[in-house]
Amino acid sequence: MLTLYQSQPTGNSYKVRLLLSILQIPYTAVEVDIFNGDNKSAAYRRINPLGKAPALRLEDESILTESNAILSYLASGTEYFPSDALLRARVLQWMFFEQRSHLPYIAVARFQLHLLKKSPRDDDLAIWNLHGNIALEIMNQHLAKTQWLAVDAFTIADIALYAYTHVAPEGGFDLSKYRGIQQWIERIESRPGYIPLMQTPPVTARFSE
Amino acid sequence: MLTLYQSQPTGNSYKVRLLLSILQIPYTAVEVDIFNGDNKSAAYRRINPLGKAPALRLEDESILTESNAILSYLASGTEYFPSDALLRARVLQWMFFEQRSHLPYIAVARFQLHLLKKSPRDDDLAIWNLHGNIALEIMNQHLAKTQWLAVDAFTIADIALYAYTHVAPEGGFDLSKYRGIQQWIERIESRPGYIPLMQTPPVTARFSE
Repeated sequence: MLTLYQSQPTGNSYKVRLLLSILQIPYTAVEVDIFNGDNKSAAYRRINPLGKAPALRLEDESILTESNAILSYLASGTEYFPSDALLRARVLQWMFFEQRSHLPYIAVARFQLHLLKKSPRDDDLAIWNLHGNIALEIMNQHLAKTQWLAVDAFTIADIALYAYTHVAPEGGFDLSKYRGIQQWIERIESRPGYIPLMQTPPVTARFSE
Repeated sequence: MLTLYQSQPTGNSYKVRLLLSILQIPYTAVEVDIFNGDNKSAAYRRINPLGKAPALRLEDESILTESNAILSYLASGTEYFPSDALLRARVLQWMFFEQRSHLPYIAVARFQLHLLKKSPRDDDLAIWNLHGNIALEIMNQHLAKTQWLAVDAFTIADIALYAYTHVAPEGGFDLSKYRGIQQWIERIESRPGYIPLMQTPPVTARFSE
């Protein structure tokens, strides 16, 4: 049985739960409380030296980290991660875009404002707003022409980008001006196996040292 | 013939040149001057809406962006990107680590200090130093036990991480304390097909509108 070390409210952990649900793969969840620093403990750093969630413990007891790498592993051999080299690269293109040009603004703004309830510096707010909206605009223009982000079908690129995009308003972003994104969100939320972000896994233990 | 839109001094463009050299794939390079803003022009945004380099124009005229997605495409079917799902995910794990937890500190510090010659804010310096050294320490501890980052062989994960790691001193990082990284750098630099960062491609045009 797979074990998912996760943080319930973060998009990176949610991505993996969403794919596990779509693929109907059973797993045990272990909640790592990142708000009291459990992820920075020596015990958790033996699982992931970076101290980040999610991390997936495989059947052979080895660990896989990085949410998008975990998605690639779980989706291998399924319709959600193409085997063709170019189509697969187009999926990965959007997933690298997510980690480099989307998450640092959209997810970080949500984390600071919504989860930590912190008062940010004015220049942080300005940077999140500028670059977050650039990322959303690029997605929106693309989704004005296509149903899905990477190829002509729903893939893990859509899961990776959906995770933090659909909760972007919690980071101060206005999605009402992005019609392509709104329709894409509706398409994802009507798919079989869809689960909302705050739906806890059936079996959830609590991480402790 | 492939066309690589690139910025000579950046690690993201260098990664792709290094792999093209190792694989002995011919290509035409187009230098996009990011220092005078050519990457922000309307003409370049038609190639990459994000205005970033590199971007690869394929034989079918379509464009692939995101340096690590380009590496995955070019290395598909070669020994440098495993076909096994788990080994491939371990390669991707390090490549997502690079974009999320390494580049934003190590590459950004080098870009500001070495390429732009900017005086950074004290708190930016502190963040680059803290998180950049966390990334280097994780690589170093791993490389104390293994020859290569992701699997038991040289892969595109090593290329992706090498690009900005070997020039980390230009961003103020001291590599002398990271023996594992130093030896790994030497192993990469002695491989067939290795080219240094500033070696320009044989055919280089200049991007213009």
